[in-house]
Amino acid sequence: MDARAYIEDHREEFLSSLKAWLEIPSISADPEHHGDVRRSARWLADHLTATGFPTVEVWETPGLPAVFAEWPAADPGAPTVLVYGHHDVQPVDPVEAWRTEPFVPTEIGTSLYARGASDDKGQVLFHALGVRAALAASGADAPPVTVKLLVEGEEESGSVHFAELLRDRRDRLDCDVAVISDTTMWAADTPSMCVGMRGVTDVEISLYGPTMDLHSGSFGGAVPNPLKAMSDLLSGLHDADHRVAVPGFYDGVVEAGPEERALIAELPFDEREWLRTAASTATWGEAGYSTLERVWLRPTAEINGMWGGHTGAGGKTIVPRSAHAKVSFRLVPGQEPLRVQDRVRAYVEANTPAGLRAELEFGGPGVRACASDLSSAAVKAARAAMERAFGTRVLYTREGGSGPEADIAEALGAPLVFLAVGLDEDRIHAPNEKVEVPLLLKGAESAAYLWAGLAAQM
Amino acid sequence: MDARAYIEDHREEFLSSLKAWLEIPSISADPEHHGDVRRSARWLADHLTATGFPTVEVWETPGLPAVFAEWPAADPGAPTVLVYGHHDVQPVDPVEAWRTEPFVPTEIGTSLYARGASDDKGQVLFHALGVRAALAASGADAPPVTVKLLVEGEEESGSVHFAELLRDRRDRLDCDVAVISDTTMWAADTPSMCVGMRGVTDVEISLYGPTMDLHSGSFGGAVPNPLKAMSDLLSGLHDADHRVAVPGFYDGVVEAGPEERALIAELPFDEREWLRTAASTATWGEAGYSTLERVWLRPTAEINGMWGGHTGAGGKTIVPRSAHAKVSFRLVPGQEPLRVQDRVRAYVEANTPAGLRAELEFGGPGVRACASDLSSAAVKAARAAMERAFGTRVLYTREGGSGPEADIAEALGAPLVFLAVGLDEDRIHAPNEKVEVPLLLKGAESAAYLWAGLAAQM
Ligand SMILES: [Zn+2]
Ligand SMILES: [Zn+2]
Repeated sequence: MDARAYIEDHREEFLSSLKAWLEIPSISADPEHHGDVRRSARWLADHLTATGFPTVEVWETPGLPAVFAEWPAADPGAPTVLVYGHHDVQPVDPVEAWRTEPFVPTEIGTSLYARGASDDKGQVLFHALGVRAALAASGADAPPVTVKLLVEGEEESGSVHFAELLRDRRDRLDCDVAVISDTTMWAADTPSMCVGMRGVTDVEISLYGPTMDLHSGSFGGAVPNPLKAMSDLLSGLHDADHRVAVPGFYDGVVEAGPEERALIAELPFDEREWLRTAASTATWGEAGYSTLERVWLRPTAEINGMWGGHTGAGGKTIVPRSAHAKVSFRLVPGQEPLRVQDRVRAYVEANTPAGLRAELEFGGPGVRACASDLSSAAVKAARAAMERAFGTRVLYTREGGSGPEADIAEALGAPLVFLAVGLDEDRIHAPNEKVEVPLLLKGAESAAYLWAGLAAQM
Repeated sequence: MDARAYIEDHREEFLSSLKAWLEIPSISADPEHHGDVRRSARWLADHLTATGFPTVEVWETPGLPAVFAEWPAADPGAPTVLVYGHHDVQPVDPVEAWRTEPFVPTEIGTSLYARGASDDKGQVLFHALGVRAALAASGADAPPVTVKLLVEGEEESGSVHFAELLRDRRDRLDCDVAVISDTTMWAADTPSMCVGMRGVTDVEISLYGPTMDLHSGSFGGAVPNPLKAMSDLLSGLHDADHRVAVPGFYDGVVEAGPEERALIAELPFDEREWLRTAASTATWGEAGYSTLERVWLRPTAEINGMWGGHTGAGGKTIVPRSAHAKVSFRLVPGQEPLRVQDRVRAYVEANTPAGLRAELEFGGPGVRACASDLSSAAVKAARAAMERAFGTRVLYTREGGSGPEADIAEALGAPLVFLAVGLDEDRIHAPNEKVEVPLLLKGAESAAYLWAGLAAQM
């Protein structure tokens, strides 16, 4: 029996399991639901045991538990794959905006509505179905690669203990490739693979001038104004081509190759529709790049907030004592967040006029970008697996922001492959989250093909 | 008996009158003291009657009353002088910072401490002494010029009804020169005349972009960021020489002449000391001008406040929906506030990128700058009068901001002359206001000489 037939035969069983799991309100950001997150971990562990994983463990952290499972390949020389996902979900507020109960999974047409249906329980669970389909297809009683699952319980509350978990359990997590199942495809009829995510680092910049607000009648035009200097600093973050003008900012950037740019250009991108999502009336950005390239492939500087001086009603003709701004930098592969921070500090210091004092406060060490190696056997195998499952060409996408993915790649020293079937229209993190059931089944099928493909190619 | 001898003989009488007036807490900004402002007007009217002014009237307004007095010259062809001052005073908070009671006038050495001693009761009252001294010196029973006094009761609360008063009483206020006694000299040992005041206009600029804050991971670098655009706009307000770069901003500017600049350069200006007053560590400003020229002679653009996006604790990686700034422009003679507003509007509109919408809200029609005509007989007479009283050369100053003076010049169509003996160190508007009694007497003497000088020269 081939994988597709196995999956079609087990559709109802899969759906009823998923619904049972979705009934558990595993909201990690809400302490009142921490018991539910623990129940969710237990449910998943039991399910993976029932699936046949010889090793299933609930891993406690100082916060909420993760689930780990392992099914060794029959061939001890076969590669090891680690699948990452999470079993906690987003809060449901505003709950009155839901058309169905968020924890009463409801099928409407091909969609299954419930909090966590797409992000990320549906996409975790298709792997259990996928590994069984692979066994059915091969007739073996072990998968062609060693399959490990690591399913986190704190992703929606900042993955606060995840880096520590990766460090502490490093020996158990050894793998040749990490498969991330927590992203989206372009569209139901345009299957695609995410191949990278931007990183980020952010800073609060303060400029201090006179030790008190001054009357501009007496002093205006004769002492440095911190808001003027801040405007110069922030305006100077970009050049006329809207490239980031902080010296050294682009050092080390690994440019996307022509193949990736060509596949991105093939995506049926509707800029009018995109602008509607962006609640904006015009695009803007770095010269020489399309809108999708700007949000996926290019590092940016973005002013997130700014304040200083008189901000209340009416006028107040002062030279203000200070100015403040919050700026974040989206990063791409090859940019080291800490090195970018050094460059930003040097830029601010070099551009702070005499008479003003600059202070910078970075919001932690930042997050590295991550990307798949498009020439790797793993990416080729994953793309081939999806193309076989979907019966059509698979394009590439990236994501503009990222979660703990770069940590995984770094901690495990393994290349990343993104295998996911969520859609942007799934409304993850919003009311009325849903998932397309046919796509979950395609995900299971893709996974089944991927294990065989990886065994053959790696 | 010459004017100086008369004034010295009447020192104690003058001081006891002034103290009696200073005991009245005529705080116009505090409704609880509005009765006191009325008492103050009454006191002044009685005093001017006792001085010998044939006409003395209390002029009601929709707010607080002004006092008008007139003493016609014996010669009907003699010029008419209108003296402007105010009888209301600033609040006294923080009252605990006063070393003497603010409304118990106290002599310490040559200083007289009380709220209003310098600003402006002392400087109004020396005119009553001055006109008597002029009579004593000439032996006549009418002054050599027609002397009118207009003493406002709402100057410290924004002169809200003053323009209306000037309009309504226009026929009674006809004059050939307006003498303003509400400013300061450079220092007790460096007498000087103010010869101009900057005007002002202010605006709140808003830029609106996406109709909601956007996640910068999804949209950063691909839509216009209002804070970025605002930084560009504000940064572009000045060129590299720190001149205002709004096209047309300098249209009509009447430059100060070489004589004035030379006299300003003679002032014993201590930049270190000035920086201490400015609570700043470095000067800044338009290339080619000294610090005093920058605050007195040059128009400016000053960012008074700015805000937008995330201004709370921590980071929030958004593209904000809007950005706001408050900007004021100090103006010099020849600049029309409404024309400047048009130029600012055009500048903002020309520099608002596609996808953003700009809104400007101006804080009223603005205030014109004012300046004396240094080649006029009135200024020459006033300078000569002060030089005779002080026995030394009199330099020129200006002030960086202004009150209702430009309104007076405009409403009455009369040139302005500033005759005042306050000092910056008098702490007007602050606790422990004081005035130097010897300077008030020099003020009276200068006024006495001025009436004779104007009669001779005009
Ligand atoms: Zn997720
Ligand atoms: Zn005053």
